[in-house]
Order: sequence, then structure tokens, then C-alpha cells
Amino acid sequence: MAKIRASIIGGSGYTGGDLLRLLLIHPEVEVKSVSSERNKGMPVTKVHPNLRAITQLEFVEAAKIDTDVDVMFLCTPHGAAVKLVEQYMEKGMKIIDLSADFRLHDAKDYDRWYGHAHSRPELLEKFVYGMPELHREEIKKASYVASPGCLSTSAILALAPAVAAGLVDLDRIVVDSKIGSSAGGASGNPSTHHPERAGSVRAYKPTGHRHSAEVEQELGELAGGKKVTVSLSPHAIELVRGIFTTAHCFLLKQGLKDVDLWKTYRKFYKDSPFVRLVKEKQGIHRYPEPKLVMGTNFCDVGFELDSNAPRLVLMSAIDNLVKGSGGQAIQSMNLMFGLDEKTGLWFPGMHPV
Amino acid sequence: MAKIRASIIGGSGYTGGDLLRLLLIHPEVEVKSVSSERNKGMPVTKVHPNLRAITQLEFVEAAKIDTDVDVMFLCTPHGAAVKLVEQYMEKGMKIIDLSADFRLHDAKDYDRWYGHAHSRPELLEKFVYGMPELHREEIKKASYVASPGCLSTSAILALAPAVAAGLVDLDRIVVDSKIGSSAGGASGNPSTHHPERAGSVRAYKPTGHRHSAEVEQELGELAGGKKVTVSLSPHAIELVRGIFTTAHCFLLKQGLKDVDLWKTYRKFYKDSPFVRLVKEKQGIHRYPEPKLVMGTNFCDVGFELDSNAPRLVLMSAIDNLVKGSGGQAIQSMNLMFGLDEKTGLWFPGMHPV
Amino acid sequence: MAKIRASIIGGSGYTGGDLLRLLLIHPEVEVKSVSSERNKGMPVTKVHPNLRAITQLEFVEAAKIDTDVDVMFLCTPHGAAVKLVEQYMEKGMKIIDLSADFRLHDAKDYDRWYGHAHSRPELLEKFVYGMPELHREEIKKASYVASPGCLSTSAILALAPAVAAGLVDLDRIVVDSKIGSSAGGASGNPSTHHPERAGSVRAYKPTGHRHSAEVEQELGELAGGKKVTVSLSPHAIELVRGIFTTAHCFLLKQGLKDVDLWKTYRKFYKDSPFVRLVKEKQGIHRYPEPKLVMGTNFCDVGFELDSNAPRLVLMSAIDNLVKGSGGQAIQSMNLMFGLDEKTGLWFPGMHPV
Amino acid sequence: MAKIRASIIGGSGYTGGDLLRLLLIHPEVEVKSVSSERNKGMPVTKVHPNLRAITQLEFVEAAKIDTDVDVMFLCTPHGAAVKLVEQYMEKGMKIIDLSADFRLHDAKDYDRWYGHAHSRPELLEKFVYGMPELHREEIKKASYVASPGCLSTSAILALAPAVAAGLVDLDRIVVDSKIGSSAGGASGNPSTHHPERAGSVRAYKPTGHRHSAEVEQELGELAGGKKVTVSLSPHAIELVRGIFTTAHCFLLKQGLKDVDLWKTYRKFYKDSPFVRLVKEKQGIHRYPEPKLVMGTNFCDVGFELDSNAPRLVLMSAIDNLVKGSGGQAIQSMNLMFGLDEKTGLWFPGMHPV
Repeated sequence: MAKIRASIIGGSGYTGGDLLRLLLIHPEVEVKSVSSERNKGMPVTKVHPNLRAITQLEFVEAAKIDTDVDVMFLCTPHGAAVKLVEQYMEKGMKIIDLSADFRLHDAKDYDRWYGHAHSRPELLEKFVYGMPELHREEIKKASYVASPGCLSTSAILALAPAVAAGLVDLDRIVVDSKIGSSAGGASGNPSTHHPERAGSVRAYKPTGHRHSAEVEQELGELAGGKKVTVSLSPHAIELVRGIFTTAHCFLLKQGLKDVDLWKTYRKFYKDSPFVRLVKEKQGIHRYPEPKLVMGTNFCDVGFELDSNAPRLVLMSAIDNLVKGSGGQAIQSMNLMFGLDEKTGLWFPGMHPV
Repeated sequence: MAKIRASIIGGSGYTGGDLLRLLLIHPEVEVKSVSSERNKGMPVTKVHPNLRAITQLEFVEAAKIDTDVDVMFLCTPHGAAVKLVEQYMEKGMKIIDLSADFRLHDAKDYDRWYGHAHSRPELLEKFVYGMPELHREEIKKASYVASPGCLSTSAILALAPAVAAGLVDLDRIVVDSKIGSSAGGASGNPSTHHPERAGSVRAYKPTGHRHSAEVEQELGELAGGKKVTVSLSPHAIELVRGIFTTAHCFLLKQGLKDVDLWKTYRKFYKDSPFVRLVKEKQGIHRYPEPKLVMGTNFCDVGFELDSNAPRLVLMSAIDNLVKGSGGQAIQSMNLMFGLDEKTGLWFPGMHPV
Repeated sequence: MAKIRASIIGGSGYTGGDLLRLLLIHPEVEVKSVSSERNKGMPVTKVHPNLRAITQLEFVEAAKIDTDVDVMFLCTPHGAAVKLVEQYMEKGMKIIDLSADFRLHDAKDYDRWYGHAHSRPELLEKFVYGMPELHREEIKKASYVASPGCLSTSAILALAPAVAAGLVDLDRIVVDSKIGSSAGGASGNPSTHHPERAGSVRAYKPTGHRHSAEVEQELGELAGGKKVTVSLSPHAIELVRGIFTTAHCFLLKQGLKDVDLWKTYRKFYKDSPFVRLVKEKQGIHRYPEPKLVMGTNFCDVGFELDSNAPRLVLMSAIDNLVKGSGGQAIQSMNLMFGLDEKTGLWFPGMHPV
Repeated sequence: MAKIRASIIGGSGYTGGDLLRLLLIHPEVEVKSVSSERNKGMPVTKVHPNLRAITQLEFVEAAKIDTDVDVMFLCTPHGAAVKLVEQYMEKGMKIIDLSADFRLHDAKDYDRWYGHAHSRPELLEKFVYGMPELHREEIKKASYVASPGCLSTSAILALAPAVAAGLVDLDRIVVDSKIGSSAGGASGNPSTHHPERAGSVRAYKPTGHRHSAEVEQELGELAGGKKVTVSLSPHAIELVRGIFTTAHCFLLKQGLKDVDLWKTYRKFYKDSPFVRLVKEKQGIHRYPEPKLVMGTNFCDVGFELDSNAPRLVLMSAIDNLVKGSGGQAIQSMNLMFGLDEKTGLWFPGMHPV
């Protein structure tokens, strides 16, 4: 089979950079071009020095991106993709957008969570929400995929089986996430200055985080259309890559046992190779940990029932730049092109790290 | 005034060591002796090298501790203090126990949370729960104080005003804490080996943590005796000293505004110099952060109302070894001996750090 | 005695901020005013949130600084102090400059190391190099003190006794320093963005670092005026506060023993309370460590003889913002005003931290 | 071609674990069995949780290791391999020993650096020192390879071209290394307890480190048999994986220019794909950095000439568990079996990380 030809719009940020890292080691992909307005003409390795000796690519401006490709990845800031997609749609290529521009199906949610109307609401229905664990069959048939947010991914994968099974109170779902600094992007600001950020535990958006919208949308679908309210509070901690999400739920009925949850989770994820259930009786690594999935596309999921309260604690760990970003996008790409979804992504993380 | 003469039982651990650090700079205290069975005869500075040039003390075995003192601090493991206190009570000194042995008023709670009956339940009523912000007047009159746990301190101080004011659903209080490695004590185990522990985010006890008992006891008193259920989940993160607690509560009534919470919290803590309310409109340091209180006795408290859900997010930051341990014990000591509670503890943390 | 009245020019950076922290807990000092052009009118605690509840000071612009003081501290960027000092000299106050503007005695060294001529070379001789361990008596009599650089302090204190005793080859002194991010100041740049800086080991100036000039000047004096060549290479490592310096020297003669070095170092520092010799036979903390002096004015110094080569390894650990900056400035101030040099600075660091 | 069948003796430590990670993703290798006395019968993933879903292997005891293999990897503690190798030699398989047992050619060096005589000195000559950059052709023909130490690798690769070209004083080579905690192995001790080790900068062996012997041996060969004295001082810093080595050398002649060094280094490493020369004029990543090679087999090398002294600063960065251990062993294996040495190892690191 000929390789999948791919270009990347917006390749100088962390999202584009890690997508590029993964595409360069994908056995079925050829990266044709990568854009960056600021760095055009410069070797990609000036911005992503990890790729030294691996690639000779140079950044081009977006207007000169190679569009004779099978798939275009958009790694642009929020609000930029919506202005770009139609020109690529016209050329017949598939599109995978890693920004938030097409993740929400209801244009009103953009008003509410992003503070302004969506400029092309009629395009929203053309995009599939690119989470294979929830929408595998749709993605296989999709031309356009909106790849999920990183916090959303960690929250949805922890919660989906429990919500789909009707186990928990949909009005009182607390999602307390711990997240690394790379999720804030490649541009610094006073809060990311190392002496300020190092060793910090900072509730940077204890209420009102935009990713809540995606989580409520997807869990609402799983709940058969019922309204789901998610209280999401992300915390910046000392970590570069990784998200650990603790979802605290209140059970609707008594008597739930570990074995029931095992069954529910195993069944839900039986066809999802990148979700690993982690719940051991003893040892250091009883629950998911972001360290163990760093650099990989795995999402480790665990749970614990509270004997003191009708509470279920769900946990997940991902690498925000892989399963929470470029890795998940490639997983969708694999499906869109008829490949095994593991292709190019089936490698382990490190231990220790 | 003559200085307060103090001895410490169990001075080689992190709790005893940091208590000693603080007592050595307290202007009204003279440390008479410090015990350690394992290190008897050794200079204190072999175990606590930060104290080099500051003290010439040597460890003695507990049996040789100087009991001609005004106050005895017990920094022993759980279950040890209960065997020791009576011999000191007989000598008329005041006692401050930093272990869990006398924190719970109801002996049955020891069965439930610690897994065995309390061996001397009749002593429980002799101890005051040593949190000045809740029990200042009792502590002033107390001879025996049970100094609170570190997680408990962070949870209670975040929640107390809201619970006392009847604002939140007492059945659904989620306490999600992020905690440094020093809270696990000075003895290593496989999970604290640096390559395993560094950079980790680990839910080491997502349900059933013993400190829940203290939190439920104290909040229950503030709630006028109502049953309070606290769902406490501590997470080990990359940090040595410090606890950040996020308490997610569900509001009982609509319409609560920031200004109401400000009033509630200001009033509750108006006589409590070590609680600082931190909630800024902008900037890096809008909410509490453990870094900023490291080494100090401050507990910074903040809050945020959720406009998407009837949720109130409460936050607190302490140094687990100071306000969560030796500092709070000295704060109680100050009150027990008629000193200003700030004495010897009124110094700021560092920035940056 | 009336308190020493002090003002600070340039109080919004890390140097000024930590100086302020230390002055606020100094029992014999009253801070009259602190300047910041950018933050004038704002509470000091907006910039230094660690000082919440400790001070109500607000920043003033430099032109409005309170000059009715006994001492003015200058914490301005390189090149700014030289323009400011004369107006303060005229008012008769003492001046302690924490910048590099007056540290070098020979104006030509500014040409060479700073790349431009010193604008007021005639002022250089009015300043004493403010390192009490080398110039205690001069500082006592000084009106104007140039407080040393942080790397210089760590290098000089490690090397001084060995150089003064004529033990080492003055042409081949390698100073390999490991330094925290706070030394780069409060303003961020791409290299201090947390995802880039965290976990890094970066040789940011392997040759040609400006602090070399101070080290060569001071060691040259100790060597009786001989030329000393120092090869200084600082490395940014994962640390916020702290410098660890390893000085590798080549011995001039054979047969030197540990006991000789002990004697040499003990004698040299016998009147210097803030230098602690650290060299233990076993245990974790055999050599100096920056963690143990964090927040304090101590400089821990150690050494090791190499049996495989005629090499002497000297080590030192300081907090760059205390002994390497504001703490050392206060130590000088204490001497200038006839106080015990330990006043306000005699407290231990933390362990663990 | 049939896959290379491999077994690992000693697979529960960090060296064995990371070797296993790399072998499992190697397209031409089949891992037949992995031994661990302590964990026999347990799934490999209990000890190496990063490998969950990747392998179903279980540990066997060494006596039951599958010896019907093409290559045996030994990841045993120092002193153990020497007792094991002959039984494997008899079966005709190739052997790659990752311990120190066969790295030194001269048995007397074991006396001197390891403190006891080598028990089977006659075997030493059967082993090739497994650094492909120095011994590529020998390794291709070798049956037995002694894979280098991690510090040695970083020091030798930084220094080799300069030493081979006769540029530097062979009596005064200072090697100041900064190293992560994983190099100390999987077994904890008080110095690796997280609260002690985190944030530390610790000179744990400022003189007399055993890896000096390998460095002196290899550099001595490159210097045409001249005696080379290396003064190696490793420092434990806040890092899990990675070594940064700064080698300070004194030049033998004046006038050396950057371009000369570029030529020298480029030529030396022209056939060595894993050595990347890193020396940029500007930007964050001008010199090698361990972060950028984490998880990979790259060794990044850089240099800087000192204009203030006749000094050459050489720098290198590796992952101690890959190029410093299992990765380099696989690189040798590739050569021993006629594969491209990049096979299975040609993937980039992460950025940011």
C-alpha cells in the first residue's frame, strides 16, 4: 500500500510537534510538509530539537503547505481552524482538527463556553468527535474528525462506562484533574516562568473550564440524552507531560461491588486496545499513573468504591500530548484509512521515568 | 518570664525534626532533651543536618528524657503515645501529642478507622483537639492537647466556615488532596524510592483514609451535631512539603455570591492570624499555593463558586510539617502558656521557591 | 537602640523580594519604603505573595523612595546603580549595592567582562567587596558595600582557604556550578518556560561567565596578588533556589592529607559563623547540599582529596537569594552598624525539603 | 530472516527492565525468557507496569532460563556475571554482559578499582568493550561483549575525538557528571528516599568512582597507549533518567578554533548515527541536554572553547538506561548479528518532556 501522505498546519507548538514526532515513526505515513508562519524556512529541528537526525523537514508558511495529501492535520489555536477547513475540504482530502473548533455539536455551546458565536455552525455536523473508544465506527467512515481535548479525554474515558451503565448521579460528577505544564502550550507567560511554576500546585481554573462542554456532550450521549453536569477543576502540578484525573461520583444504588465494575469496564473497553484497566491489590502501581503512559497513546483507567460513602472514585492517566492530542488523532487517522488503530502507536512507556 | 522548658519524645522522624527546628528558634522555649531509641547518643544534627551550628543537642533514649519540663511533645508513631502519656501526666507537665492517639473523642471511631479498639478510652476526654481556629479557648485551658493530622487540618480549615454556616450538603463533601512525600515519614519503602516517586501522581488511598474521621468529627461539631460524610482522596504528587486540598461541595440553596462567602470566611477567621484568605481577581497567585506557605504556620484558604453547577470549590494550602504538625502544636503550646499564639511562628515563607 | 531605617530601590525582583523578606523579620531594622516603577502604588504582597499578612507596604516609584534612612539597598539591574548612588551618597546614608556595578576594583575588568567601560570608575574605590568572610574589618568601617554575586560567593568560599594557603595550581581552577532557576531573575524568557526548563540540565554559559571576574579578583588578593585563572561553568538544573559548586583544583605538592585541609579550612573560617564545614564519613549528608541551606544565610563547604590524581575537590552550597544575595547584604549591614553579624539571620533551614 | 532469539538474566532491575522494553519493540528480536529469582512466576508487568498490554511474559528463575537462544543478555549485579558466563559460552550463544565484570582488560584494574581480584582473569580477553563508536568492527566479529557503564559512556563519547586528536593535557581531565536517580538501581536506600533525594544536588562520589577505570582504559587506547588520568566526579541531581557530563580539559597548544573542533568531531563520528553534534549559536537548546535524548539511544555531544583560559569544555547527554545501558547493548547486538546498528533503536525523544 502506498503510504498515507500527510501535512500539518501549525507545527511549531507542542501539539504539532508531538504529532510530528509520532507521524515520523509511523510506518504507513509520509509527512509531506509542516507549516509555521513564525518559523518558515527554518529546519523543524530548531523548534523541536528532539527530532535532530530524524528529519530534514523545514517549516513552510501555511499558504505553501503541500495540499496534495491524503490527510491534513490542523494544530492551530482555537478559532483558526474554522477559517481554514473549507479550502482543504474542497480538495477532497481528509481533515483531522486538533483544536476545539469542531468538537461541540451544538453551536450554542460555543456561545456559552467559548464566549462567542461559532462562525460556521453549518460545518459542525460534518465532524465526528474523534474518540475511537466511543465513536470507532463513525470515525472509520468519517472524512472530518474533531480530535478531543486532553482534559476531556481523561475525564470521558474514566467516566464513560459508569455513566453508560447508569450507575452514577448525573448531577454531581466532580472531575478533579492534575495536569502538567505542557498542556498550556509552547508560549510562556508569567505563570509558567520556572521559578513560579516549579513545585506549584495551582488551581488555575477551579470552575468554568471549557473542556467541561465536551465532557457533558459525550457523557450526555452515553446517558441516552440525559443532561449531565460535570464539575471540572484542573490543577497545575509539578509535571511537564501528563494528566491524572480523579472523578468522584455518587452512586445511584447500593450494593455495587468491585466485580460489577470490573465487568462494566471490561465490557465497555473490550475492543479498545489503548485503554488499560489498572487496579491491583498491592504494590506501588495499583492505580493509573501518568508517568507510566508518558510518550504513549495509552489511557490507564482505574476505580475504587468507597465503603464510607455512596461514592465511586474513577481514575485515569494519559499523556496530554499523545492520547490527549496527536496520538489520539493518529489513532483516528488509522481508522479513517482502514489500518489497525494500533499502527505506529503500539509501544510502551518507560519505567522508571 | 522564665522560658518554657520542653522535651520531645520521638525526635528523629520528620515530625519531631521539624518541631525541633521551630522550637529552637522560639524565643520563649528552651529545649531540654530529645529522644530517639535508634540514635541515642548521637548528635541531633546527624539526623537533622539542617540544624548544624544551631544546636549541640544529642539524642537520649526515651527512658532518659528530661521530665523536669513544662511541656512534653510526643512525636511517636500511632499507638505509642497511648502507652506513654500517663507517666508524664503524673508529673504534672502539659502534654501535646502529635500522633493520632487522642484526636478522636469517640473510642468507637478507633475501631472503625484504625481497625482496633483504643486501649485507654477513658483518656480521650482529657485531650482537646488542638486546632486553635476551632478550639482556641479550650486549648488555653487545656493540659493535654491532641494535635491534628495534616490532611485533616487542610480539609477542616477549608471547610469549617461553609459547614458552620450551613451552606453545603453534608452528605456529599468531596475532599481531593494533593500531598508531598514528607507526609509519609522518614522511613523509606519501595513506593518512596526516588525513581518511583519522582514525578508521580499517585492515588495512594482514594477511599478510606483515616484522617476522614477527624474531619467528620470536627465538621460534625460545627454543623451542630449533624452527621457529616467526607469523601477524602489524597494524591501523592511531586512535592516534598505541602498539601493542597480542593474540597468540592454542593450548595443547599441558590444565589450565593462571592461577597457572602467573603463575609462568612472573614468572620469565621477574624481572630485567626495564621489563616489568610487568598482569592485574587488576576495574577499568578490567585488561589492558595503550598509553595508560598512552605516552612511556615500559615494556612491559606480560598474559594470559587461554580456558575455551571451548584458547586462550591474550597481550597487550602499548608505545610504538612508545620501547620499540619509541629507548627500547629507550638501554636497550641503558645495558647496553653498564655503567650500570643504567633510567638515564634510569625515569619513569612519564601518566594520564589 | 533605635532601629536601622532602610529603604530598597528595586523591590519587585527576586533579589529585592528576598531581601525584603529577611529585613521584615530582622529585629533591628525598620523598612521605610520599597521602590518599583512598574508596580508603584501596588501592595508589595501582589508581587511577593509570601508576605501576605506580614507587611502592608506599597511600592513607590524610585523618585519617591524614603531617603531619610540609615541605609539604602540597591537591587537594580546591572548598570542602573552607577547612575543612582551619588544622590544617596550626598545624603549621608550608607549604601549596599547588590548589583555588579561596584564589585570589581579595576575599571578595565568592566571593559573585559561586561563589554563596556565603567561610567564612573572613580567611585569603584569607595566600595568594599561585601563578603564578611574575607573583608570583615573593612566592612565594619565601610559606608559603601558592593555585595557579591551568587556564583562568585559559592566559588570564593569553597576556594579561599586553599588558595590562601598556596595549595593549588592557580592556572587550572575549574569551577563547575549547578544552579537553580531563580538566579535568572523574575522576568521570564523562552528558556525559563516551565516545559523547557523543568528537568533540564543546561550548560547556559560554559565559558566566559561574568562572575569569573569577581572570583579571580578575590582569589588573586588571597594569593598575594598572583594571577588566578578560574574556569567557571554554571549549569542550570532542576532547582529553584540554590547553588552547588564543585571546584576541581590541582595540587602543587604531594602528600596533603585530610587533616591538613581540615586545619586550613577551620582556621580560615574560625570567625565566620555562616560557613559550616561539612564532611562526614558516612550517611546521606556527607557533603554540602543546597537543600539544607535553602532560605538561610549559611554556606556549607566540604572537600575531598583524590587518591587517583593530584586533585582536590572543593564543594560549597548556598541559597543564591540569601547568602548569594540579600542575606549576605544584611550580614554586611549588621557589621556596618555594629551589630553581631548573625542578627536576624541566625535560623536553620528545613529538613526534609 | 528468522528473528534473533534472546533471553535476559536479571530482568527485574532497571537495566533489565529497560533492555526488555527495547527488545520488545525491536522488529528482529524475539524475547524468549527473562529471569528474576525474587519474582519468579510473576508477570513481568508486576515489576515493569509500563509493559502492561505489551507482553505476557512471566519471570522464571535463572536456572530455568531458555538457553535455546541466539543471544543471552546479563543484567546482573557486579560480580555475578563472572560466575554465569561459562555455562552459556558452552552452549554456543553470543553473550552481552551489561555488568562491569568484563569491561576492563587488565585484571589488575579490578584489584585497584573494585577492591578485589578478578576471579576469572583469563576470560577478560574474550570480551570486546561494547561501544560501537570506538569498536564497531570488533563488535561485528565478537561473540562476547562487555557493554559499557553509563558514566563511562557519557565521558568517553565527549572526550574521545579530542583525546584521539592529541588536543588535550592527558593528566588533567576533569569529568564533572550530573546524573539521575535511576542510575542507582531499583533498590532503595535512605539516600534515595524521595524526601531526601528530591531536589538534591549531591556529590555522592567526588573522587574514586569505579567508572574512571573504563574511561582511562578507552581514552588511553585512543591516545596511543599513553597514560590518561581522569578525575571523575558524579553528582546526583533532580532527575530520574539522564546523564549530563561536562568534561573540562586543558589544551596543549594555542590557537584552536571552533572550526577545528567541528572537523575533528564530525570526522570521528561520521559513521556513528547515534552521536549527534549539538552546538548552536542561539536559542534554548544550544548544547546537549539529557531531556532531549530521554528514552533514546542518542548521545548528544557539544563543546565550547574558553577565551579566558586554555580550556576546552566538552559536553555530552545520554539516557543512562538506554545509550548508557540496554540501548547500547542492543546496538552491539545489531552489529553482532549483521543488522544495521540503528535497527529497533531509531526513534526520537520527546519535546517537551
